[in-house]
Amino acid sequence: MDIAALHAAYAAGDQNPRCVVEGIYDRIEKEGLRPVWISIVPREQAIARAHALESQDRSKLPLYGIPFAVKDNIDVTEMPTTAACPAYAYTPTESATVVTKLEAAGAILIGKTNMDQFATGLVGTRTPYGICSSVFNAKYISGGSSAGSAVAVAGGLVTFSLGTDTAGSGRVPAMFNNLIGLKPTRGAISTHGVVPACRTLDCVSIFAETSYDASLVLANAAGFDAADLYSRQPAVGAGASPWAGAPTFRFGVPSEALLNFFGDDHNPALFKSAAEQLTTLGGVAVEFDLQPFLDAAQLLYKGPWVAERYAAIAKFIGDHKAEMDPTVATIISGAANYSAVDSFDAAYKLEALRRTTSTAWHNFDVMLLPTAPRAFTIEEIAENPIERNSILGTYTNFVNLLDLAAVALPAGMRPDGLPFGVTLIGQAFTEAALLSLADKLHRKLSTALGGSRRELATTPSLKAANPPHGCLLMAVVG
Amino acid sequence: MDIAALHAAYAAGDQNPRCVVEGIYDRIEKEGLRPVWISIVPREQAIARAHALESQDRSKLPLYGIPFAVKDNIDVTEMPTTAACPAYAYTPTESATVVTKLEAAGAILIGKTNMDQFATGLVGTRTPYGICSSVFNAKYISGGSSAGSAVAVAGGLVTFSLGTDTAGSGRVPAMFNNLIGLKPTRGAISTHGVVPACRTLDCVSIFAETSYDASLVLANAAGFDAADLYSRQPAVGAGASPWAGAPTFRFGVPSEALLNFFGDDHNPALFKSAAEQLTTLGGVAVEFDLQPFLDAAQLLYKGPWVAERYAAIAKFIGDHKAEMDPTVATIISGAANYSAVDSFDAAYKLEALRRTTSTAWHNFDVMLLPTAPRAFTIEEIAENPIERNSILGTYTNFVNLLDLAAVALPAGMRPDGLPFGVTLIGQAFTEAALLSLADKLHRKLSTALGGSRRELATTPSLKAANPPHGCLLMAVVG
Repeated sequence: MDIAALHAAYAAGDQNPRCVVEGIYDRIEKEGLRPVWISIVPREQAIARAHALESQDRSKLPLYGIPFAVKDNIDVTEMPTTAACPAYAYTPTESATVVTKLEAAGAILIGKTNMDQFATGLVGTRTPYGICSSVFNAKYISGGSSAGSAVAVAGGLVTFSLGTDTAGSGRVPAMFNNLIGLKPTRGAISTHGVVPACRTLDCVSIFAETSYDASLVLANAAGFDAADLYSRQPAVGAGASPWAGAPTFRFGVPSEALLNFFGDDHNPALFKSAAEQLTTLGGVAVEFDLQPFLDAAQLLYKGPWVAERYAAIAKFIGDHKAEMDPTVATIISGAANYSAVDSFDAAYKLEALRRTTSTAWHNFDVMLLPTAPRAFTIEEIAENPIERNSILGTYTNFVNLLDLAAVALPAGMRPDGLPFGVTLIGQAFTEAALLSLADKLHRKLSTALGGSRRELATTPSLKAANPPHGCLLMAVVG
Repeated sequence: MDIAALHAAYAAGDQNPRCVVEGIYDRIEKEGLRPVWISIVPREQAIARAHALESQDRSKLPLYGIPFAVKDNIDVTEMPTTAACPAYAYTPTESATVVTKLEAAGAILIGKTNMDQFATGLVGTRTPYGICSSVFNAKYISGGSSAGSAVAVAGGLVTFSLGTDTAGSGRVPAMFNNLIGLKPTRGAISTHGVVPACRTLDCVSIFAETSYDASLVLANAAGFDAADLYSRQPAVGAGASPWAGAPTFRFGVPSEALLNFFGDDHNPALFKSAAEQLTTLGGVAVEFDLQPFLDAAQLLYKGPWVAERYAAIAKFIGDHKAEMDPTVATIISGAANYSAVDSFDAAYKLEALRRTTSTAWHNFDVMLLPTAPRAFTIEEIAENPIERNSILGTYTNFVNLLDLAAVALPAGMRPDGLPFGVTLIGQAFTEAALLSLADKLHRKLSTALGGSRRELATTPSLKAANPPHGCLLMAVVG
């Protein structure tokens, strides 16, 4: 259930956190731990937590009694962190900052979810803990790397979940499971206590059924953390989004020649329809050249950024390569081919692409893209695990490198019953504005929430964003 | 002569640009091209340029008729750029942006100056074009890498000059030649048309006799340049320096234990005296821990940033290593030892040091350091060319890595007739404020200009800085 519905049920006395938690554990017991979960909080501990909450002042707990899950590369005290690699597992004595903050807001942790090992993948199949499927079709991948986190929300086990997103891991699974997938600005949510993939690019992401929920979770998850080297405080004026409250705004759509759906028959029409619906919300479509964005994307896996993945687990990989997922081991070992000179050369290339792409934002306020070009079956991924994975990241890989924020949202169902998704992308610190627009577009394109039959129309709308940090709204009269 | 004196002489008709230029070429003819210059503008061409200027509207040319020199890693159209490596020489068809801007403001280029090869050195001895000395003692190094640029100004050949500064190359020679050496914020002056040393760190620097002159040159040299990948526009509020106009301000001085003069007998007292004089200007000394700044400095040569120097000349060094200065070749070849993983690891270390050192700025507004711990003779450098070079950079190496601005200024003469120098360091985009404070302190510590007997007291004072970009000064009354 979405946050507002759950809070309404709590307020009416129709529900209480203990019963909700009991219900979740009953379902997990019935459906089995795998493949969604790697480990769960012991039932009695979660019940005790729910019980303890009941005596607290609900008005001070914005996430009172809301069950959530976290990806298993995010530390939770006294629970193993595996990053989906059993040989790597360790048990932290401290929870990640973001987990502590969400629990302080009243949320109830249920467990830790399955993922592509070391968050290296967009498929959800690179794990020894079982392969997650899309909640809509067991033959199709759930997407990854935040596979279990997406499926736990779409399957109605929890209200929201945390993923991580370096290359699209918080967005691709949102598309395949009909969810909102928020990839905030780098540094907006602390990554302290998160196993690094690429430390300079990693973001904690949020899966939820609605933009309203994602927004509320973000408000409680974000904030500067001195313990995270890459935590950021927005500069004065950062994230200014005057378009968010305006009657019209401009959105970038790629020229058709560069919009590749890799042979899919249904997604082109669904994307076109999403763009049309955006115009009914005041959007004016502006065609732009996607090529420099795609060029930036190439740097992520075909360049020295792979060395960040190596740096993150350098000690481990030396001794335990054989215990790793073979695809993940192959990708990360590729780092050995890159020198420091390559790394600076790539930094110059990225800087040039940042410069080129930054001018695109003079022409539009927000960018509309497919979240992923197409879906794949688990079998298709097994046949060609690297190339097909890389197709999935076509429209997500460049986002973190170029310091952008993104919200993936459901964009209707295909005739074959699989969901399609689009992503709204904006400049750094525009996530609040993106979410408010995503909420409006979501309501134009979708009816049911996640994998459920519950209706989006019954959930609260998200108000337009507040003015950015350090700014006042001014009315010029006269 | 300083800019104001020259402009006064022009206005009074006591001088004209042609005569000034003739005088400079007469001196060069008499003293010889080497070791100050690598190449000069042909006399008749410089005279023609001076002549052409005379028919222009002087009121629109802030640098009308001011002779200047540029380091030979800065392109000037139709003149060879050697970076002090004859085998590397090429002849550009376009001048560097900064040269074009200064010429457009009325300045007259005389020539291109000697330097440590590929700007790799702080000594001025790593060049096949002859070794520059301090204008105060022929046995002592001029400092480098911008050796000839400093000597040309201190020797009174030109009014100002351009150097480059990655590790201190625009500051160390300022100390050894009794000059102002301005190292602006990275990206404030375009490096388009400059041979890279470390592209992510390089700055064009300014040598002048006074802060007033450096400030006027900066105003005409700085500005965003789309052709320079690392050119920056200051964010709103960047460089805010409320202390610049205030009756009191706080300045950081390192605890004595970390203030190393490497055996020098005179500099400790001169540094102490500079700190005392700063208090008479309203400064309140705040002791701080220099160690994290020194740690950052270590990354520059003992870490993968050397790979940037390699990346800059990778094609050349492969075929021409034997034609390079052996010390420079050794240093730059060291880049081969670093992998992309090292490079990311070092980036994390730097980020951690940025975080640590950034909090130091809560306690003070500006930092006072010796420019270099001590001087060396040319012979001393020849005996131990790498280690002694590295001692010279003790207080300069961290500045560009930590995105700071700096002004080196004269700080009195030693009993042996050599000059001492101190540097004021501030956060990014504070150079205008630093220059106004440097001007006041300079007048407390020094009398003569550069290597001349002309008096600082006769030159105009620099007014306090304007409010930073995007800000208004507000008076709160009531």
